[in-house]
Amino acid sequence: MQLNDLLSQTSEWLKATGAESEIVMSSRVRFARNLKSLAFSHWADEKQKEEILGKTKQTLLKNSYLKNSLFLLMDELNDLDKQFLVERHLISRELAASGSCKAVDISEKEIFSIMINEEDHLRLQVIQSGLELKESLRLLDTLDSELQKDFEYARNPRWGYLTACPTNVGTGMRASVMIHLPALVMTKRIGKVLESVARINLAVRGLYGEGTEASGNFFQISNQITLGHSEQELVDNIDRVIKQVVEYERRARELLLKNSRYQLEDKIWRAYGILANARIISSLEAINLLSVIRLGANLSIVKKVDIRSINELFITTQPAHLQKIEGKDLNPQQRDLKRADLLRDKLK
Amino acid sequence: MQLNDLLSQTSEWLKATGAESEIVMSSRVRFARNLKSLAFSHWADEKQKEEILGKTKQTLLKNSYLKNSLFLLMDELNDLDKQFLVERHLISRELAASGSCKAVDISEKEIFSIMINEEDHLRLQVIQSGLELKESLRLLDTLDSELQKDFEYARNPRWGYLTACPTNVGTGMRASVMIHLPALVMTKRIGKVLESVARINLAVRGLYGEGTEASGNFFQISNQITLGHSEQELVDNIDRVIKQVVEYERRARELLLKNSRYQLEDKIWRAYGILANARIISSLEAINLLSVIRLGANLSIVKKVDIRSINELFITTQPAHLQKIEGKDLNPQQRDLKRADLLRDKLK
Repeated sequence: MQLNDLLSQTSEWLKATGAESEIVMSSRVRFARNLKSLAFSHWADEKQKEEILGKTKQTLLKNSYLKNSLFLLMDELNDLDKQFLVERHLISRELAASGSCKAVDISEKEIFSIMINEEDHLRLQVIQSGLELKESLRLLDTLDSELQKDFEYARNPRWGYLTACPTNVGTGMRASVMIHLPALVMTKRIGKVLESVARINLAVRGLYGEGTEASGNFFQISNQITLGHSEQELVDNIDRVIKQVVEYERRARELLLKNSRYQLEDKIWRAYGILANARIISSLEAINLLSVIRLGANLSIVKKVDIRSINELFITTQPAHLQKIEGKDLNPQQRDLKRADLLRDKLK
Repeated sequence: MQLNDLLSQTSEWLKATGAESEIVMSSRVRFARNLKSLAFSHWADEKQKEEILGKTKQTLLKNSYLKNSLFLLMDELNDLDKQFLVERHLISRELAASGSCKAVDISEKEIFSIMINEEDHLRLQVIQSGLELKESLRLLDTLDSELQKDFEYARNPRWGYLTACPTNVGTGMRASVMIHLPALVMTKRIGKVLESVARINLAVRGLYGEGTEASGNFFQISNQITLGHSEQELVDNIDRVIKQVVEYERRARELLLKNSRYQLEDKIWRAYGILANARIISSLEAINLLSVIRLGANLSIVKKVDIRSINELFITTQPAHLQKIEGKDLNPQQRDLKRADLLRDKLK
């Protein structure tokens, strides 16, 4: 498998096959792990980093979940390829930043991705379509257990897994869902809903995680606490909350259909009309209009485009994807043209 | 011919058959005339108004240009029908306002329309597609000469034709063109062009004449002066000025195509996308977007809709037309839905 093979495939989590996938785009669980007796990444010298990379690579490559995986050394990738992986949610922006001995191993369907020498020695990630946190945890747990056969993790009997950043100590787990809440935004109920989510110690972020703005009515909701509860408990808690939020969004959609159907249809069809006809379109405008069409497709108002194609467009209209598709560097103006071409092609 | 027959026909002036019709929508010439020895309309009592109506009706109905014409008494029309005629530029808003013995006679293809007991006893109007002021004047002159065989006009050897308002005295003629100048607006040159037009004593107005705003980049340019020059001289002057303005607009279009083709195409296709997909659309938004598509069709950027259909939509999306098409009264919200339906139907 080569990096460019990803271009022609749809990430598994975009396929809208999971539970509640008309509202929950994806579920992600990530474990932070560090090898015992080796300095944490930020403190490790070159030799130690190489040792971490060597050890983990060897173990990963023989893992059954990672058969035919794509192992990539960051040093061997150009900026465009790194940005491309960030856009696909396969690596973090931190891994993409400069630094030696950084790598990622990506499973065939892009369900697993394991980052090496990011903030922690290992960041194990699973990402799936829809609300599938429990299944994601199960999968990641299995992978994690396999890996533990080969090496010992830094762990404290009282605190649990030790991590580079104290906020991850304990389970080392971050479980998050990316949730699409256009009706709660349109009915101006989103603020109240997100406030109550924040009150029970869940974090709310934008489309590309920490420090990014919520755009396209997408929100990432994840656990803040990693300590004092089991992985299962933490995941059960988020799962319960998300189910509630899904229910609120569903009610808001019903309300819109009942009280302002024409306005809603108008908004959705205008978004479609612009995306299917514009010649120049920015990334942000594309995300915001695709968001509206996604709602339209979920409500069977727009029938000519399926959810899967719309989900894909959120990713393929990103800057690095456009340049990879085109096979060359494009400046922002050229990207806005290319993005419009792609959208017209896919939406007609 | 019945009033409702107009609904299924396209006014001749909308057919884009005249000279420069990609920029000049229509040419209109109007004569104000009053019968000698009868009080002007504003001063006339009921009996005199009836006399004016009777005399002129009789004469008009036997005129060869007005064969099979539609003779309508305002008193017999409801508000919707009157508004419908205003939207088609066949009667003035003044004629549509209350008052007795008002009437209009409309020729078969809507080229001629003669208003009776408006501000003057008679307002003779000819309207044609494109820049056809000279031919319009010729046609109206012929009609006028025919009518003069039957009755004598109020006329002063020194001043010429006498009219209710002193601004019309002399020729009693108002010649105007409705001109579409989107590229001059987009390139921000319109102000300068209209200023120089105003400096040579031509009036600039909006789509529905005096007191209306310019919308959809349409401007009505007409003579201010009716006195001291022959009809031919006045028309020649406007014709020369309009040819110059047409040339400016043409150059501005070339400039846009040369310097900002993508931006222009984007603007045009977005307008198309919205009009062909929206579910709710106001009259003003429709005019403004149709204006952009009209430019697109003229530049062969949008090929799926012809100019004639676009020209027609400026009129058929007006409130009274929508209600006549629907066959019943519609409130503003209902009209916005119906307008969007009509636009989708015609633009797809």
